[in-house]
Amino acid sequence: MSCNKYNKIDKDVLKRLKEIVGHQNLIFDNEEKLEPYSKDEVPDSKYSHMPEVVVKPSTSVEISSIVKLANKRKIPLTPRGAGSGLSGGAVPIYGGIVISLENMNKIIELDRKNMMITVEPGIVSNEINEYLREYNLFYAGYPMSMETCFIGGNVAENAGGGKAVKYGVTSRYVIGLEVVMPNGEIVEYGGKLLKDVTGYNMVQLMLASEGTLGIFTKIILKLLPLPKYQADILCLFDSTDNAVNSVHKIITGTGITPVSIEYMNKCALEIVFKYLNESIQLHNAEGTLLISFDGNSPDRIEEDYTAVCNFLEKQKGLLEIYVADNLSTSERVWKLRINLAEAVSVLSKHQAAEDLVVPPAAINKLSAFLNKLSAKYCLKVPCYGHAGDGNLHIRIVAPEDWGKNKWEELLPIIQDELYRYTYNLGGRLSGEHGIGHKRKKYIDYFLSESHLNVLKTIKKSLDPNNIMNPGKIFDI
Amino acid sequence: MSCNKYNKIDKDVLKRLKEIVGHQNLIFDNEEKLEPYSKDEVPDSKYSHMPEVVVKPSTSVEISSIVKLANKRKIPLTPRGAGSGLSGGAVPIYGGIVISLENMNKIIELDRKNMMITVEPGIVSNEINEYLREYNLFYAGYPMSMETCFIGGNVAENAGGGKAVKYGVTSRYVIGLEVVMPNGEIVEYGGKLLKDVTGYNMVQLMLASEGTLGIFTKIILKLLPLPKYQADILCLFDSTDNAVNSVHKIITGTGITPVSIEYMNKCALEIVFKYLNESIQLHNAEGTLLISFDGNSPDRIEEDYTAVCNFLEKQKGLLEIYVADNLSTSERVWKLRINLAEAVSVLSKHQAAEDLVVPPAAINKLSAFLNKLSAKYCLKVPCYGHAGDGNLHIRIVAPEDWGKNKWEELLPIIQDELYRYTYNLGGRLSGEHGIGHKRKKYIDYFLSESHLNVLKTIKKSLDPNNIMNPGKIFDI
Repeated sequence: MSCNKYNKIDKDVLKRLKEIVGHQNLIFDNEEKLEPYSKDEVPDSKYSHMPEVVVKPSTSVEISSIVKLANKRKIPLTPRGAGSGLSGGAVPIYGGIVISLENMNKIIELDRKNMMITVEPGIVSNEINEYLREYNLFYAGYPMSMETCFIGGNVAENAGGGKAVKYGVTSRYVIGLEVVMPNGEIVEYGGKLLKDVTGYNMVQLMLASEGTLGIFTKIILKLLPLPKYQADILCLFDSTDNAVNSVHKIITGTGITPVSIEYMNKCALEIVFKYLNESIQLHNAEGTLLISFDGNSPDRIEEDYTAVCNFLEKQKGLLEIYVADNLSTSERVWKLRINLAEAVSVLSKHQAAEDLVVPPAAINKLSAFLNKLSAKYCLKVPCYGHAGDGNLHIRIVAPEDWGKNKWEELLPIIQDELYRYTYNLGGRLSGEHGIGHKRKKYIDYFLSESHLNVLKTIKKSLDPNNIMNPGKIFDI
Repeated sequence: MSCNKYNKIDKDVLKRLKEIVGHQNLIFDNEEKLEPYSKDEVPDSKYSHMPEVVVKPSTSVEISSIVKLANKRKIPLTPRGAGSGLSGGAVPIYGGIVISLENMNKIIELDRKNMMITVEPGIVSNEINEYLREYNLFYAGYPMSMETCFIGGNVAENAGGGKAVKYGVTSRYVIGLEVVMPNGEIVEYGGKLLKDVTGYNMVQLMLASEGTLGIFTKIILKLLPLPKYQADILCLFDSTDNAVNSVHKIITGTGITPVSIEYMNKCALEIVFKYLNESIQLHNAEGTLLISFDGNSPDRIEEDYTAVCNFLEKQKGLLEIYVADNLSTSERVWKLRINLAEAVSVLSKHQAAEDLVVPPAAINKLSAFLNKLSAKYCLKVPCYGHAGDGNLHIRIVAPEDWGKNKWEELLPIIQDELYRYTYNLGGRLSGEHGIGHKRKKYIDYFLSESHLNVLKTIKKSLDPNNIMNPGKIFDI
């Protein structure tokens, strides 16, 4: 549906929106205040678009009224969390109404007996764990943006993060959702249940639907007992190949499943070292693995990381292993990983951020291909990410002497090569950042026409007016 | 859609089916050979229905041709695995074509580097683990019928089983599916990927869709390193209340997540003891927990089960704990649990098998309510199941002096009481056995009209002729 099929916000709609959310929870006709809602963390301004109006509802009933109004008047809606997304998913590309969930930021209930927590979508993800610490419980989702992102966005994108090797991604922990559907009806899916086959698994269909199938208004998360101890090892290798070649062997070779197996190449590390003024001796390492362990016994953790260290010492090209076995050293090494995205962002305005995922044993091939691309086009390619999951965040950074035109001419050619290679490895376009607006033009590199038709059929059946976050994932 | 909207199999259709699968893979006009395909493990014959024809395809292309033919001629299709289901899901209630997956029973590929296996749907679930043992890998699904059920059925029902407390249910391990969709198109969802947000999560929508949204023809499973050791403890309590009251406290109280926390009440245990001629001293226990542990170090396992034993000894009503710390004693105690369903089935022909799931900390309430129901109606209520997941298998067994009429009159009244109580606990109709044909009349006790409408909308959009396993989960 093209944007001219939608209606603009008129006085009547505005009046009705004011009645629903109250004057103080509506932004209109104020460019400065609307502007922050026109973009997410994708730096390229071509993916931004101004909303006509922003509303900040406080209840699912208010959202239901807004959705029903939008349906009646054919006005596009864009649900928005913290705006920390990396795919343009929360950008109102057809204008219309942005529904910001920022006022819905409460913990509704901690159920300690069932080890479950019910929250509103607008709570900052990390605040959930801060709240839970005193109860010795934790939510195992761990996106790198956890100090700013909202849990609702994590659910909408099925965020991965730094603990997925052991704990899995967001979807493993979301067991119940209250959703305002595209027709405005409020439906509860799942519940405080560890298993449930009473009807289709709508909770899992909603995960990663990027706000195109409904707006989450309550989220029930399964919790785990908080592990008492953590340790990390930072492993330096003489080449990218030798670093990534080890990744898939760690679990099969030791029988141990670490919490994380994160990768950073030299280019990425140098940038973040400079950014943080870090002085750990790197021994000219070309590739680095950050591997984490947790549990309730320091002895068991030490046994586990010692076994992994012994295994890695037998692998080719290991230069050095640093062990971080207390909170302050752990924080120091993780700070490198957590700050990488921001550190890299300031490098150049001509850069593309990729989120490719491949079978975990194929990341060595993807890494080698990146080295080739880098040489062929004289690119900087800082590369890092969740190697244990096969998910690499790759920045394609233009050489300093490329102007805007050359960048815009060559980037599609580079991406074409990269995506075709990734697909041939059995890979996909996004592991955790989502397709959104930014990547939708490439989705047919990865999904067949029949596959896309199934997705579009579901979308059209649930949202016949295409008002719910239109223009994201695919066009219909 | 009522059955008279479908067409019968005629000579033309039969000829075409023979061309597709070959004469030897088609059963028609032979009541004796068709009869086994008219039922599953639900004992009540009122849930059976004869198919008009059974086909046994060998490839997804053959299945695609059958589905396209059925669509053109408006003939209902019922996909079928091993027929070990407990909800009438594989019963062709409108006649038509049963597509038996029994010939599609191969392991397609073991990918040791990625710790993934690709299989056809008709392989017996346990055979996957037998095949994997020599590679020190395992598939963590563990349905109690693993020696007969097919993996395709496990996926279609999202089977739970005996290891879900630690390992989760089937859905955690299914990462890729090839599916013949209701329009006959062959689509691959997911892949050899540990995470992927490239489009909606169709893999998870297919799980537990009970063959109503498509037929799985290839399944990619994520594997884990095979734990080297196992131990089990059988814990006897003086009352059902005291046994089930402990369940949700084990994990929060010790920080340890066992592999299993299984429950059996006295009635269930007595039946299976008699069935197996077992002589373990029961000390008049009214409720029993079977708790399992695994790992790579016998010391760690002993530490863990000792911690759990110490914890349970502080709980009310513990009579005795038996430790099974070697393969033969482990097998002996698990034999009790695995044989329960069969042992109970022979008790009476007037019995209903329930598969209720509630928040795990609410099973004490559900158990107490069962005791009340049992007293009120003079019922035997053997009860057992996956207590750690909040999932209880409950048999409602009529007193010996009830005739057929009284049973058929009172069962709906008993179920009405039980389902209302379960719903009020936040529970649902099925934890792992599925809704199928048998439970669909009760689904609106648990799902709102809006919720059901969403499920029906998706079904209708993907299967407009309603040919794919019609009459299961809900009627449209």
